[in-house]
Amino acid sequence: MNGAESLVASLVRAGVEVCFTNPGTSEMHFVAALDRTPGLRAVLGLFEGVVTGAADGYGRMAEKPASTLLHLGPGLANGLANLHNAKRAATPVVNIVGDHATDHLRYDAPLTSDIRGFAAPVSDWIHTSMSARDVAADGMRAVAAACQAPGKIATLILPADTAWSEASGPATPIARAEATVPEGAKIDSVAELLRSGGRCALLLRGAALRRGGLEAAGRVAEKTGARLLCDTFPPRIERGAGLVPVERIPYFAEQATEVLGDIDHLILVGSKPPVSFFAYPGKDSWLSPPKCVFHVLAHPHEDGIAALENLATALGGPAAPSIRAEREDVKPGESLNAFSVGQVLGAILPEGAVVVDDGATSGLGSYVALSSAAPHDYLSLTGGSIGIGLPMSVGAAIACPDRKVVVLEGDGSGMYTAQALWTQARERLDVVTLVFANRSYAILNFEMQRVGADPGDQARAMLSLDDPAVNWVGLAESMGVEASRAETVAEFRDQLASAMKVRGPRLIEIMI
Amino acid sequence: MNGAESLVASLVRAGVEVCFTNPGTSEMHFVAALDRTPGLRAVLGLFEGVVTGAADGYGRMAEKPASTLLHLGPGLANGLANLHNAKRAATPVVNIVGDHATDHLRYDAPLTSDIRGFAAPVSDWIHTSMSARDVAADGMRAVAAACQAPGKIATLILPADTAWSEASGPATPIARAEATVPEGAKIDSVAELLRSGGRCALLLRGAALRRGGLEAAGRVAEKTGARLLCDTFPPRIERGAGLVPVERIPYFAEQATEVLGDIDHLILVGSKPPVSFFAYPGKDSWLSPPKCVFHVLAHPHEDGIAALENLATALGGPAAPSIRAEREDVKPGESLNAFSVGQVLGAILPEGAVVVDDGATSGLGSYVALSSAAPHDYLSLTGGSIGIGLPMSVGAAIACPDRKVVVLEGDGSGMYTAQALWTQARERLDVVTLVFANRSYAILNFEMQRVGADPGDQARAMLSLDDPAVNWVGLAESMGVEASRAETVAEFRDQLASAMKVRGPRLIEIMI
Repeated sequence: MNGAESLVASLVRAGVEVCFTNPGTSEMHFVAALDRTPGLRAVLGLFEGVVTGAADGYGRMAEKPASTLLHLGPGLANGLANLHNAKRAATPVVNIVGDHATDHLRYDAPLTSDIRGFAAPVSDWIHTSMSARDVAADGMRAVAAACQAPGKIATLILPADTAWSEASGPATPIARAEATVPEGAKIDSVAELLRSGGRCALLLRGAALRRGGLEAAGRVAEKTGARLLCDTFPPRIERGAGLVPVERIPYFAEQATEVLGDIDHLILVGSKPPVSFFAYPGKDSWLSPPKCVFHVLAHPHEDGIAALENLATALGGPAAPSIRAEREDVKPGESLNAFSVGQVLGAILPEGAVVVDDGATSGLGSYVALSSAAPHDYLSLTGGSIGIGLPMSVGAAIACPDRKVVVLEGDGSGMYTAQALWTQARERLDVVTLVFANRSYAILNFEMQRVGADPGDQARAMLSLDDPAVNWVGLAESMGVEASRAETVAEFRDQLASAMKVRGPRLIEIMI
Repeated sequence: MNGAESLVASLVRAGVEVCFTNPGTSEMHFVAALDRTPGLRAVLGLFEGVVTGAADGYGRMAEKPASTLLHLGPGLANGLANLHNAKRAATPVVNIVGDHATDHLRYDAPLTSDIRGFAAPVSDWIHTSMSARDVAADGMRAVAAACQAPGKIATLILPADTAWSEASGPATPIARAEATVPEGAKIDSVAELLRSGGRCALLLRGAALRRGGLEAAGRVAEKTGARLLCDTFPPRIERGAGLVPVERIPYFAEQATEVLGDIDHLILVGSKPPVSFFAYPGKDSWLSPPKCVFHVLAHPHEDGIAALENLATALGGPAAPSIRAEREDVKPGESLNAFSVGQVLGAILPEGAVVVDDGATSGLGSYVALSSAAPHDYLSLTGGSIGIGLPMSVGAAIACPDRKVVVLEGDGSGMYTAQALWTQARERLDVVTLVFANRSYAILNFEMQRVGADPGDQARAMLSLDDPAVNWVGLAESMGVEASRAETVAEFRDQLASAMKVRGPRLIEIMI
């Protein structure tokens, strides 16, 4: 058994089931090991941003890490932007990055680079294996590092000789440090605060936005009148009819400041104080009012659901909250735009769907409409690096093969990692991709004004994607994904309904 | 005049004419400045790997830096792989990377990241502007850093407030440190060596592979019998009929060892000792024989052409060499493959074309055939990070608007940065892209055997791109590039001849 085989066997023992790959020569022994030590499903991406974004989507839905396989420093580099998003989402990921054989590094061959340097900004844990006999144990430590609550990025650098040399066998999994439950004194302190009558809000993130957390938070809200909030871009939130609704803090700072303006006490549950996404000349980045006092119910590494349940019980809240979103079919507007698209989607979305939002300005319409749709999971762009939607759909679909995945994708953001469509086709993933074809970086048209910059012709051209217009139907079909174009609400409804009736990838280009 | 305007004006004064961009909110003032301070042409890429690869192609051909405009850490991260290639090519590049306003960084907003950390592995010079009044001078220092011989990567981080705040005006360009000419004693020492009768070879890189360097090297070779060599992947080499030919060191280590096996003295002209690209179990990475003695005629930062000219004169070489490649039209083989494609291309290639090779296994056939084609420039993948061909074609075409650019692209490597086709179309660039559709990572099929790994079904599937096959004609057309498919030598010849007769982007998918 060589080092690569011992690593694959160890990953499998530790519960890792999937490896998203884009390998090269230095990873060939790892690739060969995939067949000899079964249990790790290899999924090929044609670009590393697909690989790492898929690992993010997988980790968010499976609640355990996928591994990635990347080719030296430049291969890792191509995956860094979506690892940045994954880190901001607190998604567990185990990166395996091949390197030159240890003896080869001294020669500074063309592909030699500072892999640790590339990895550091996005990694919570980095290690370079020193010998084939260490690789199995190193892999176990990488998985344990990734599984630390709420979820971490672990990067294991694997020199080719540690993969091909003789090893001793797989290692033993390391017991994971589970999320801890906050002590009773902390619960009591927040309970007392909530009873005191000030204007309170709970800001939820992480597991607190899953059904169990929402139920407990709803009990607290019903008993105390506290508001329930979430960030603009939570990694994952369960939404829709029957679930406890949560107010989303708006993206634009002036709107966020208004929404938060009357809060005396903000109680953090796995979250951080809200700040604006970008800075604007002369405007404050701190969104809550100066008078607002912060309290921590649960840190991100703690068990937010248990904390909320204990809080609800301490407050004597109802056994179950009555505040619940109701199923509602809104009649879509007549013109095809982000809002009518959302209304059509809300009416058709099947229960248990996973919605991936990389739609920038165009995602908002669906976010609004889906509050009253069938219950579903909603995944956001957490780190601001656009181009995660299509890759994340790949990972979510592999984590949840029995659930329909819907991607809300901008035509600007989609072009960063459109190669993910190929993996959708190759793996026959059950994903419907909605591309909002507004043929511009629409958000930048807003932002250009908001930062006070005054664009001329060349500047405006930098925000426009209409020369030439990308033909998304042709692009998708070129990678094996069936596609159609919708120019009216009726066309969109028919195409979406048809896509929902079959399994497998479909793309709809929505001409908004 | 704000900081962004003072920076743009300074870049223009320093001779920077092009900015390859993929901007976001934090770069809006820089984008707006492009109109108010004319002279910097903005070229939009839909992905940052296109932006940085284009800057590499531009710099190699223009022999001066382009600037890039990138959006915070993740935007830079997406461009790192092609900056790795550019660094290995010693291409001058000035990266402008936007960052959050200085006051905003303390809040750790979602897009906050360690930009210096991302930049360090690929940058020779990094600086973060501290105030709007510094930005102009910082820009001048960045250009001077990039222009150090043979060419460097300079990265200037531009916090949004240093772009939008009031500045004093453009700065004065810094005098550039030109490449120095090696002292006479060094020339004489190498001349003496060459007269001594040992088996000598000159290994040329950088400017030494341009026409002037080749002429002088040819004079040396003709006088002394020394061999002329170049690396497997030189950044830029002038080739074809009438030029002095140079032997390329083969990619595979065992072949390279054989080619170098009888050399007693290897004379480095802007180059480093040859080493194998990857390591293989039990094989040596050092390619020259143990007995081989190394001598430096010119370091990479020195003027290799002047050194060769002085050496030729010191040796009493002929005024002009007679060793020259001859024009030869080889009748193409009957089956469509990398070699017959090269033979057809060699017959049709117009004088002064720029050939960009990102074709991996498929590029070799053209490299061989083009030795007797009309004189042209040949650009290689210097850093081993595949996916530079299409981006580099964008930069080369913008640097040389009157020359036809031909890209040799693998279907595997092309999929990393296919978005460059959109920029080809948008800018009406005169580029013919040849995609070798073998529907596999063909090089890895070789390498899997060579490293001694034994693949099973899942491993072999990781090297195969035939399920689904990418339709490159559809892909190109979806981004506005006219395309066709060639299944026979005759079809390819007709399509290539037709593409050569018109200006503007064309793509031919070659079914090999």
